[in-house]
Amino acid sequence: MSEKLPGYKGKALETLLKIKAEVGDLVRVKKERVTYEGILIPRSELGDDKHIVIKIKSGYNIGIKVTSKTVIEKIGTMTKPSFKPPPPPEQKPNLPRVTIISTGGTIASRVDYRTGAVRPAISANDLYSIVPELSDIAAIDTEILFSVFSEDLTPKHWAETAKAVAKYIANGAQGVVITHGTDTMGYTAAALSFALQNLPVPVVLVGAQRSEDRPSSDAATNLIGAVIAAAQAPLAEVVVAMHETVSDEAIVLHRGTKVRKLHTSRRDAFKTVNANPVARVLDRKLVMLTDEYKPRSAGKKLVLKPDFNEKVALVKFYPGMNPNLIEWHIEAGYKGLILEGTGLGHVRRECFAAIKKAIDKGIIVAMTSQCIWGRVNMNVYTNGRDLTAMGVIPLEDMLAETALVKLMWILGQTSDMEKAKKLLTTNISGEISARSVEPIPPPKTLAPNDRGA
Amino acid sequence: MSEKLPGYKGKALETLLKIKAEVGDLVRVKKERVTYEGILIPRSELGDDKHIVIKIKSGYNIGIKVTSKTVIEKIGTMTKPSFKPPPPPEQKPNLPRVTIISTGGTIASRVDYRTGAVRPAISANDLYSIVPELSDIAAIDTEILFSVFSEDLTPKHWAETAKAVAKYIANGAQGVVITHGTDTMGYTAAALSFALQNLPVPVVLVGAQRSEDRPSSDAATNLIGAVIAAAQAPLAEVVVAMHETVSDEAIVLHRGTKVRKLHTSRRDAFKTVNANPVARVLDRKLVMLTDEYKPRSAGKKLVLKPDFNEKVALVKFYPGMNPNLIEWHIEAGYKGLILEGTGLGHVRRECFAAIKKAIDKGIIVAMTSQCIWGRVNMNVYTNGRDLTAMGVIPLEDMLAETALVKLMWILGQTSDMEKAKKLLTTNISGEISARSVEPIPPPKTLAPNDRGA
Repeated sequence: MSEKLPGYKGKALETLLKIKAEVGDLVRVKKERVTYEGILIPRSELGDDKHIVIKIKSGYNIGIKVTSKTVIEKIGTMTKPSFKPPPPPEQKPNLPRVTIISTGGTIASRVDYRTGAVRPAISANDLYSIVPELSDIAAIDTEILFSVFSEDLTPKHWAETAKAVAKYIANGAQGVVITHGTDTMGYTAAALSFALQNLPVPVVLVGAQRSEDRPSSDAATNLIGAVIAAAQAPLAEVVVAMHETVSDEAIVLHRGTKVRKLHTSRRDAFKTVNANPVARVLDRKLVMLTDEYKPRSAGKKLVLKPDFNEKVALVKFYPGMNPNLIEWHIEAGYKGLILEGTGLGHVRRECFAAIKKAIDKGIIVAMTSQCIWGRVNMNVYTNGRDLTAMGVIPLEDMLAETALVKLMWILGQTSDMEKAKKLLTTNISGEISARSVEPIPPPKTLAPNDRGA
Repeated sequence: MSEKLPGYKGKALETLLKIKAEVGDLVRVKKERVTYEGILIPRSELGDDKHIVIKIKSGYNIGIKVTSKTVIEKIGTMTKPSFKPPPPPEQKPNLPRVTIISTGGTIASRVDYRTGAVRPAISANDLYSIVPELSDIAAIDTEILFSVFSEDLTPKHWAETAKAVAKYIANGAQGVVITHGTDTMGYTAAALSFALQNLPVPVVLVGAQRSEDRPSSDAATNLIGAVIAAAQAPLAEVVVAMHETVSDEAIVLHRGTKVRKLHTSRRDAFKTVNANPVARVLDRKLVMLTDEYKPRSAGKKLVLKPDFNEKVALVKFYPGMNPNLIEWHIEAGYKGLILEGTGLGHVRRECFAAIKKAIDKGIIVAMTSQCIWGRVNMNVYTNGRDLTAMGVIPLEDMLAETALVKLMWILGQTSDMEKAKKLLTTNISGEISARSVEPIPPPKTLAPNDRGA
């Protein structure tokens, strides 16, 4: 391995050494009829010896197989502008104090093209240099709590994050922003919604679908929206702030228990499900979209309940699913199972014996729907009725992901299973929408694209 | 237990016997400040002894706990109109021949209020009596293949259904309609899309979100749309025909590999994901919405490939997921695992060793996204790159459910794992949408409510 070509080996390394290319250089690769141009980036240690990886103009990385017919030219030495933050802007007086806690993810990162490493860019100075507008909105403190891809976050990280939020609120923060990878931001938002009770100020999670060094990045717009929400919103709940549509017009706030990432890459990937978004930031002004929220109040005393029990699993049902999968969870000592059933809340009868066994052993088994939108109703068909008769708990219109997090949280608070079951079906943080007069109302926001107004 | 009060016992039975009520009667139940009216229906054998269940006017069943304060009155003996089909309508000459195969589900059922049993109403005469318009559209043959709630259907049922379709096509059917429970209709649609290759005529799955005996039923409209599609559509693919919106205006046809149930109860619950619907039936006329489809042609010879391998699992990832869950699948002899990862196709690094072990043992491991919309791209972040380097196969914009069914089908066709991997990433039945010039294009139908036109 070459120091200037980390991760490269074999044929690929040989070819790159021949043209004296190193990571960070601009290269042109000709392959049959296609030509690619981009910045050579380091490879993973687990990579093979046949591909080179370049970051193309759109910001995406592509792997190209090096064969005897591949022609690679070095067309430039990429000297990335070094990252020198300007002096911090003057602090304007009388601005609300907002703390930004960084947990990692695209929004907090810039790719260092030399090392390929993701560098968290989240000291207050760094932030001001990227998004100078922030200094007009709030006086900002920052902390790098983790620097983790969000799929690697666990319930332990949720607990640490909740404790950090509590600490900054105790220190006088008038709003808290948490930068987060988008992959599991919905799960963390739900976790904090339960762990941070009786909040005096807003807690706003924010991410980016494209990193700040890409032309199409949503990082700055999202961050400004999140800081405005943290500084000014009259609500004191856990919310997610992200693009409302694909354009840069509006940032929308989703309640932490009702939000789901519904697109792999679009800027408006996050949607409120089975409810309406709570607020919108448009032209730097925050407008509430509902008057049903827990209000901001300096007098409130935060109640921190950061414990989660990891012995809770999410099991998505599919045709032909082997009931032994449920048995495995029993044997592995799980205390709670969230089923993601079909339709109104069903699984095949073949699974009933295993489910009954779990319930008989004291495991809490509850039902959500893989439909995502709508409400489970286990009273309509025989299979649903039999499951509830067995003790499976229908979870109304709760998202499966929120249900998982909620049961982890409940079983982190109590080992009294009757109390736990009661809490599970009690609306604590907006996770259950009220059932209207119609037995199953058509929600206003089936369409993830709707403005939800 | 009383014969006239099946399933009732204890307190509930006692109370009902006292007022001489029997199943099928109209009763009024007063409980504190609320009064319910509805038809007394049988209880499940697994039910407790404290509740009675009535079907209220909206068609939903509710359970009411009987306490010392509950007052139950019998207010009418419900004589449901007996189900006497009229004589079959005159067969009009020169209509296309359509076969309707019933597998069960809401659309094929009427509740018998005496027994609480679901009665398949699918003889040709029954159908004409419910939806007489059908006799203007096609000459209809019918078969009751199963009478099963769709969550109880397994890959074996998919195989039987495929064989039945092939049989009727061989017998001259110019289109086939399959009535199906909506819960797993998307999975079956994908299964038939792979099992029925080189179709000469359309195969249309259809369901209903509300049964035919409810005022708001979508059964008749959906069935008429499906029969029009089967009789007239110029395409020869497997599609799903359901309400396009909550109004009765239009029925839309979704490609079988791209359709997902996205609402527990709405009539427009089915949506095409990451593509556009293929056709619409409006005012009894079919309009194609795309010109990219496999055409109907009497000259084509159907290739039936009905085998599925049930040793394929769908594993939905969540924060903190125990890697031993993957190990369990290895030990249980699974041959394929479809991961439903986060975002662009990620799982936590803690799972990498178990995944590598699975791949080393020859198990095919492939990645889809729980975001549902969008395309996996495992080239952007380290975790994704390392997973692909390990041999995890990214499945583009395929739905997780379709990916599961496809891998079950592939491993039903071949035990050559290299061939299987190649098939998995080859677009066979529209399950992979072409990547456009943009690296990840915003799909036109993110919004399940969009018309998709």
